[in-house]
Amino acid sequence: MSDPGPTSAFEQDAQLAPIMAHPLQRQVFVCTSKSCAANGSEAVLEAFKAQLIEAGLLYTKRNPDGEVQCLHCGSVGFCAIGPAVLVYPDGIWYAHVTVEDVPEIIECHLKGGVPVERLVRKRMGA
Amino acid sequence: MSDPGPTSAFEQDAQLAPIMAHPLQRQVFVCTSKSCAANGSEAVLEAFKAQLIEAGLLYTKRNPDGEVQCLHCGSVGFCAIGPAVLVYPDGIWYAHVTVEDVPEIIECHLKGGVPVERLVRKRMGA
Repeated sequence: MSDPGPTSAFEQDAQLAPIMAHPLQRQVFVCTSKSCAANGSEAVLEAFKAQLIEAGLLYTKRNPDGEVQCLHCGSVGFCAIGPAVLVYPDGIWYAHVTVEDVPEIIECHLKGGVPVERLVRKRMGA
Repeated sequence: MSDPGPTSAFEQDAQLAPIMAHPLQRQVFVCTSKSCAANGSEAVLEAFKAQLIEAGLLYTKRNPDGEVQCLHCGSVGFCAIGPAVLVYPDGIWYAHVTVEDVPEIIECHLKGGVPVERLVRKRMGA
């Protein structure tokens, strides 16, 4: 067998972190810092994860075809208008997100590509 | 005095969350989940915050003119190649970020707009 030669650091990393090559479409960040958490953001995060799993959309080790990643994050300055939810690369910041809003955000925005305007309070990179 | 009339929910929120109207340029997310934390990501997060404060760039309540927000986040799937650092709205995902890399990322990317290519392992929305 011929020597395949040294692999690059990039190629080695791609084997260690398959998400590097994955066509991930979006990341949903849910603030779980003090004020948002006091307003139920942990339940919002869990609702997103559960419903995205149900829809086959959540990227996990068990579902590496999922198009959406969902994760907690620190305070974004929406402390008085939380829970805050950010969707990237779209750059959409939502406020006042409740568990009841999660199906609409998934259906309209994450599946349909159209943000839920009544909850949008900031746009990054626009 | 005349009645100024009812303000919209959007206007009320803008008073409660001044960042809504702020021309924030970038958000830096540092993964502080298990594997990244075990590889020093908390120190990377603190280095970003300290050096961005020093440069007058960090958005905080005390520096509401800051152009950059810096916050922790959950796992992005770079567990084996962390610490992971994400910069949005650019959509740049860095791997293997150490405290020593922070000044270069601030200077080249956050000030200069040019990502530090040797550390880039994924691009979202490209």
